[in-house]
Amino acid sequence: MIYLDNNATTQVDKEVLQVMLPYLETEYANPSSMYDFAKKPAEALKIAREQLRDFYGAEDVKEIFFTSCGSESANMAIKGALNCNKSKRHIITTKIEHPCVLNTYKVFEKEGYKVDYISVNSEGQLDVDELKEKVTKDTALVSVMWANNEIGVINPVEEIAEIVKSKSPDTVFFVDGVQAAGKIPIVVRDTQIDMVGVSGHKFHAPKGVGGLYVNKKCRLTPLINGGHQERGMRAGTENVPYIAGMGKAAELAKDSLSYEASEVKRLRDKLEQGILKNVFNARLNSSLINRVPNTTNIGFEYVEGELILLHLSDYGICASSGSACTSGSLEPSHVLRAMGIPFTALHGSIRFSLSRFTKEKDIDYVIEKMPVIMDKLTKISPFQDELNALRNLRK
Amino acid sequence: MIYLDNNATTQVDKEVLQVMLPYLETEYANPSSMYDFAKKPAEALKIAREQLRDFYGAEDVKEIFFTSCGSESANMAIKGALNCNKSKRHIITTKIEHPCVLNTYKVFEKEGYKVDYISVNSEGQLDVDELKEKVTKDTALVSVMWANNEIGVINPVEEIAEIVKSKSPDTVFFVDGVQAAGKIPIVVRDTQIDMVGVSGHKFHAPKGVGGLYVNKKCRLTPLINGGHQERGMRAGTENVPYIAGMGKAAELAKDSLSYEASEVKRLRDKLEQGILKNVFNARLNSSLINRVPNTTNIGFEYVEGELILLHLSDYGICASSGSACTSGSLEPSHVLRAMGIPFTALHGSIRFSLSRFTKEKDIDYVIEKMPVIMDKLTKISPFQDELNALRNLRK
Repeated sequence: MIYLDNNATTQVDKEVLQVMLPYLETEYANPSSMYDFAKKPAEALKIAREQLRDFYGAEDVKEIFFTSCGSESANMAIKGALNCNKSKRHIITTKIEHPCVLNTYKVFEKEGYKVDYISVNSEGQLDVDELKEKVTKDTALVSVMWANNEIGVINPVEEIAEIVKSKSPDTVFFVDGVQAAGKIPIVVRDTQIDMVGVSGHKFHAPKGVGGLYVNKKCRLTPLINGGHQERGMRAGTENVPYIAGMGKAAELAKDSLSYEASEVKRLRDKLEQGILKNVFNARLNSSLINRVPNTTNIGFEYVEGELILLHLSDYGICASSGSACTSGSLEPSHVLRAMGIPFTALHGSIRFSLSRFTKEKDIDYVIEKMPVIMDKLTKISPFQDELNALRNLRK
Repeated sequence: MIYLDNNATTQVDKEVLQVMLPYLETEYANPSSMYDFAKKPAEALKIAREQLRDFYGAEDVKEIFFTSCGSESANMAIKGALNCNKSKRHIITTKIEHPCVLNTYKVFEKEGYKVDYISVNSEGQLDVDELKEKVTKDTALVSVMWANNEIGVINPVEEIAEIVKSKSPDTVFFVDGVQAAGKIPIVVRDTQIDMVGVSGHKFHAPKGVGGLYVNKKCRLTPLINGGHQERGMRAGTENVPYIAGMGKAAELAKDSLSYEASEVKRLRDKLEQGILKNVFNARLNSSLINRVPNTTNIGFEYVEGELILLHLSDYGICASSGSACTSGSLEPSHVLRAMGIPFTALHGSIRFSLSRFTKEKDIDYVIEKMPVIMDKLTKISPFQDELNALRNLRK
């Protein structure tokens, strides 16, 4: 099995699982309890909070909150900040955000908020000038993802933070950091970013735990009211095993950033070049620069993406045609549409996403099999004339 | 170590952990993905949903939602239902609900909702007539816990559901089932209960997973917007290991209900009688009837609860003086205050909560040590005259 869908989810690192197991076995006390037996779980939360603080490059552990997933982090950040700033009714975001962000803004639109969706160019790069123009004193929230899940493009969030705050100091700036975490540094120190959400299972912690950095100057209401946990900001008995695991995963991810930037990038580039070179109807769906090192999104013209995925799956290769959170829907990707990818490639676009566990022989295997699959699929495509024209063009 | 704080949290059953481990190790695919590798995790969700359906005695798996904890279940139920019924602005609950419920209603009070808090008598039993009187056509939501976390008293929620619906069919009835689940049946079939929340870690699944039953006639808005997971009602990649674990835990809990009702109850009664007989300043803080089988709450007059807990902890005995979710606060329990427990016992009340893993020798040990601890603590109490009077009275 060759797993190239690490933007959908990642395997749990064995070291992470080792950190978690004691809290699933013998150290099961509620960390809020008074007795000695609760000290180790309470200490585990403390260690993990410090590991996350370090991962974020944040100043204070009080700026770190644990949640149950990236979607909860985004909902907590967005709803919590808007609740504290009810007089302002304007939101700015991008056309290529994750569904958990976009669908949350749809709720606010129904409540009468005005939401501006900033465009991207054909390589997926954000129109920062358009964003700058839209910011006014009435803007409650600006929300831009650090890196995109489908094409891997990195947005200049530090620069955007400066722009937002210079035009409207009271506007809150939220960054969905889910797809950047573990791939590039997500350091908030010396930036004007107010909040950054991450999801553990995107950097080798398990599914079901997330983090949220909230600058101490930024005010929020809780999404989940109740007990005193997370200093009253997120009720519910803490998921000690997963929080401890995410802390360790954050530490390992930070230590692996240079490996990501060199070796993972080398393998991604090898895969990308190998496919683009050997498959005549392949085209790159993003910029070559400003991308996270693990992601490539390749359009195969005149071929159906679902068919490609099925054939890849038959060879034991896992990849995807967009976000797992929108799978099951037959709509083409909103990200690729926002980029203006021609419809001839839109339906046949495949994302390959690597991790530090990806091996060179896996990449070689995919490079070998992709032309075989495409040879088969182009033969049954109803667009034979167009494919022949393309074949001649690329000769 | 003798663990008698199972209402705060429970150990993960070894069988539950075995069900979870494959999804933390090799079967890590995102269950929403298209490829073969995602089939086992997707199947695990399906099995767990069926196990929860059976646990609740619900008709349809579509009535089962997975959440990250009991607090999320309660917030999702309460906020989701009130959001769908905005013209009604009246809520009825009880004085002895869990903080995750009470603090959520405080938020709605600030937004202008009228909230009635129904009283309990000195044995913790709800004044159902008072509740009946308060229900009007303007009541949006009635919310009563199935069993109380501190004293274990069971509320007649099936009967209350009939009362609510007969007076106001549009009123939604939410039951916090967290402390009932695994101790007594929480069967919704043939009742008029709309929603029941549970928390996995109270019945030997890990901390960080919960369930919510929502009758298919009942409408909700999501608390966490985003992807298509949980049929659009709860975004976020599913926590496959914990959900699979909670499914297994629900199955085991259902199978253990008769053991709870007989053997756990026998041990609880033995502990309770042993302490009440051997400790002259002990008094039972609840009714003898209509209690979950695992819980006893005993007041030790003229002694400080925190001191008792520390001494118990020195003997390796884990118990608590109220909800773990309010620990750290020096306020006496809101539940015992609502019962009108005299202040002489209020500060010295200890909850012992057993599980199916509690052993007879553990109970014998606590019965042996409790008089030793109390002998020491009554000697340093500033209330010597009152203690002597009590001693003479009980002779």
